[in-house]
Amino acid sequence: MRWDAWGDPELAAPLSEGTATLIRGMLGVSGEVTLPTIDPATVAVSPSRLSVDDLAGLRAIVGADWVSAADADRLVRAGGKSTPDLLRRRRAEQDAPDAVVVPGTDDEVAALLAWCGENRVAVVPFGGGTSVVGGVDPTAEQFRAAISVDLRRMDALIDLDEVSQIATLGAGVTGPEAERLLGDRGFSLGHFPQSFRYGSIGGFSVTRSSGQASAGYGRFDDMVQAITLVTPRGILRAGRSPKNAVGPDLRQLILGSEGAFGIVTSVSVRVHRVPAATEYEGWRFDTFAHAAAAFRAVAQEGVMPTVMRVSDEIETALNLARPTEIGESDDDLPDKQVPGGCLAITTFEGSPTAVAARAGVVREIFTAAGGQSLGDGPAKTWEHGRFSGPYLRDALLDIGVGCETLETVTTWAKLEEVKAAVTAALAEALPEPVVVMCHISHTYATGASLYFTVVYRQGDDPLAQWQAAKQRVTGAIAAAGASITHHHAVGRDHRPWLAAEIGDLGVEVLGAVKHALDPLGVCNPGKLV
Amino acid sequence: MRWDAWGDPELAAPLSEGTATLIRGMLGVSGEVTLPTIDPATVAVSPSRLSVDDLAGLRAIVGADWVSAADADRLVRAGGKSTPDLLRRRRAEQDAPDAVVVPGTDDEVAALLAWCGENRVAVVPFGGGTSVVGGVDPTAEQFRAAISVDLRRMDALIDLDEVSQIATLGAGVTGPEAERLLGDRGFSLGHFPQSFRYGSIGGFSVTRSSGQASAGYGRFDDMVQAITLVTPRGILRAGRSPKNAVGPDLRQLILGSEGAFGIVTSVSVRVHRVPAATEYEGWRFDTFAHAAAAFRAVAQEGVMPTVMRVSDEIETALNLARPTEIGESDDDLPDKQVPGGCLAITTFEGSPTAVAARAGVVREIFTAAGGQSLGDGPAKTWEHGRFSGPYLRDALLDIGVGCETLETVTTWAKLEEVKAAVTAALAEALPEPVVVMCHISHTYATGASLYFTVVYRQGDDPLAQWQAAKQRVTGAIAAAGASITHHHAVGRDHRPWLAAEIGDLGVEVLGAVKHALDPLGVCNPGKLV
Repeated sequence: MRWDAWGDPELAAPLSEGTATLIRGMLGVSGEVTLPTIDPATVAVSPSRLSVDDLAGLRAIVGADWVSAADADRLVRAGGKSTPDLLRRRRAEQDAPDAVVVPGTDDEVAALLAWCGENRVAVVPFGGGTSVVGGVDPTAEQFRAAISVDLRRMDALIDLDEVSQIATLGAGVTGPEAERLLGDRGFSLGHFPQSFRYGSIGGFSVTRSSGQASAGYGRFDDMVQAITLVTPRGILRAGRSPKNAVGPDLRQLILGSEGAFGIVTSVSVRVHRVPAATEYEGWRFDTFAHAAAAFRAVAQEGVMPTVMRVSDEIETALNLARPTEIGESDDDLPDKQVPGGCLAITTFEGSPTAVAARAGVVREIFTAAGGQSLGDGPAKTWEHGRFSGPYLRDALLDIGVGCETLETVTTWAKLEEVKAAVTAALAEALPEPVVVMCHISHTYATGASLYFTVVYRQGDDPLAQWQAAKQRVTGAIAAAGASITHHHAVGRDHRPWLAAEIGDLGVEVLGAVKHALDPLGVCNPGKLV
Repeated sequence: MRWDAWGDPELAAPLSEGTATLIRGMLGVSGEVTLPTIDPATVAVSPSRLSVDDLAGLRAIVGADWVSAADADRLVRAGGKSTPDLLRRRRAEQDAPDAVVVPGTDDEVAALLAWCGENRVAVVPFGGGTSVVGGVDPTAEQFRAAISVDLRRMDALIDLDEVSQIATLGAGVTGPEAERLLGDRGFSLGHFPQSFRYGSIGGFSVTRSSGQASAGYGRFDDMVQAITLVTPRGILRAGRSPKNAVGPDLRQLILGSEGAFGIVTSVSVRVHRVPAATEYEGWRFDTFAHAAAAFRAVAQEGVMPTVMRVSDEIETALNLARPTEIGESDDDLPDKQVPGGCLAITTFEGSPTAVAARAGVVREIFTAAGGQSLGDGPAKTWEHGRFSGPYLRDALLDIGVGCETLETVTTWAKLEEVKAAVTAALAEALPEPVVVMCHISHTYATGASLYFTVVYRQGDDPLAQWQAAKQRVTGAIAAAGASITHHHAVGRDHRPWLAAEIGDLGVEVLGAVKHALDPLGVCNPGKLV
């Protein structure tokens, strides 16, 4: 992963001519590079505050090869991948963690936490580094330094129970690596968030990640059967059975804990056999409201596709189904088939009989709700490009165009109102014209997520500009009674609104749990609670 | 509800001649009444430890009509409905709460909790009184008295969002009342535990109840969208949206809290339209192992019936599908159709298309797994008698026959081993011959519940006899790595094994949450944590 942009440099593409022309025309920017990326060799990285003795202490725990205070190692763990993060990366001075430490076992993690408590050093767990809420910011807060604890050595498929279909994976296993390890045994996890290529099992857990196949395989928190959290007070293992009545569900206290209670080192997740059959079907709905009603009917009937998502009119028109090719002209492409309407995507995975049965039920409901089938083309096109979206943002930032995503979730009754409130808040906070695109990608019986992409002309201080807009839009979300995040988590950026969501008493409860597990407060300070 | 037996006296039936003959023959008991029930007028109820001033203080909070220290009122809240409870009810001396207080609002509940803290009085929330784990035992522990806080006035359908299909119900609404209130609007909750007729929404929440239609509508904890907990420290409201990433899920901390953190006063639950279509299908499998494999295949495919349960060979032979008619002879009845095998029941509810699609997938899987369809008869028979089981127990206790249920949940890989361990522990702990019946009634992709009914000859001290057996069997469950309870909760009876299940650190976390919300410890002391 690049230190200052999304993903793999090999996959980063310049803006296509069509996209560049469209964006220039819409937003009135010249296309000149106004905010260039910076050569990491020229960056002034904050000097490590750890002494030679400190580093020796850390090396005594994890081994000499697994501690680094080198600028290059620290720089790639300087933060996550939100637009503010990427804007900060284009500065000549960078804050970075004071060392990168890579433990290999639960015992080493426990020893690190003890060392950090004794030595007044904050611990910032690091998986894929894809946080977009400041969750891996190397903030020391009241401590004298902060180390990044990189979990990449915890990369094993520890156990696969093929009968129960439960896999135990190390926290550092990435999305593709999980699929490879399981695929060798004929299984799949089926968790495909936008961050799939870099995100880790531990990160998916502590942020309550939700993948593109959530309709079929559930959110990541639904998949978790058991989880191991190494805390300064010892190891907490939660989850003895699929579901039970042994008091509160402690798994659900560790899930979403964002490193604030300790470090997740392994997770047992439900897996499934690599599906025997897959069906794809794209649909056109006249309006987003029609599509939402159709999605609601499907979820309330309880017979779900594996993937079910729909873009609103604007996202459909701008063809975010092919995120690297906004504005490209090709009459065969899906946006040409849905003029003025909304493009929905469904896929179905499972046995041939089950796939046919589920697809039949969904087809009946969608047709009754006014949907028109577009065949399998749009869904296949979407699947092909589904992890490429974030690359586009880096190319836009170069030419002074801001691009960020944000998300929420609410009940069906409030969906349109929340969508309008977010759109209005962005339009008020950013210079005209603001392009706001939206899709539903996670559907429940009682409500759905709303995922927004906003594109706008950057001002003289792009960071302050976006922070003001984020402040406004998150306030609008909270005021509308929706959740401040559906799957991005709280981190540092959403923390000011935590009490609005869960109440002061809810914040106190989380504080009590943190105090019980991390009495000195060294675990990811400044995040979540 | 009777104070000393299950349910409605009108529905209690004496043992049929066939059942009585079978039981007498199997267990070698005479059929004479050896342990009679007792006339409540002759019972010595523990005197109330509350003063006139105390009662005046309570009346000032909830109103004069809603506080009682009368023996008759206290006696019906003396405990739950486990076999030990019913054995204790046959004694001449009874412990009872010191008063029964019936609040009508959240503010009254909050004021009661404050009063109890100031006056050193324990608070035992009371819903339907159907606990089988000592969850409503009126234990004062370190306090000078204990009051039963009966939630029956909180009996309203507070809100119904027909679009999002979310109903907000008062904690005191019972199962049948929820169905009536929702049914008037064309909706259903679909939560049908054995305790359905008496259990309350609050009780279902704090015990993580699971109903017979859990395959289709989920466990009660799956249904909960939002929940209000009144605590001594204030009101905690959790659940703004169906699912989100706003840190740990505080709903899942309140669910299963068994009154130890405060009192749940209202719950927002997912509901569904009264189904347009229902299909019933019974199945015969050669063995329990075959049936379990078939259930596993269905759950792992992810296309579920609404109800899916299977009795093992012994339960099938003794025809617990008709629990009031054990041993009755009728060639048309389902047990005659499955000699030597296992009877499974499925029902499907939903739209006609969805019902047909789901039933088709399940039929294909069951047939491939060796199942033989028995048509719709067995499932309809089961549905008719499904809430009558507990009545049988009271009639058996009269004649010196012990009858109790216990349950667990584990992964598919461990299911047979756990079933064998429980059966062996019961056989070792109780006098020969012990009749152990088992069924699966809650099925997950990764495992299933096991629900046991044990029938045995009682000894001279039936309470001590069962407690020793319970000790042994719960130890066996914990040692086998299964959960100590799937849906009965922890209460007082399972509390000694809590640390074996969640670890000492897990118990500490729950203690920290309790301390944050209930610093004086007045909330249901001695239960859960």
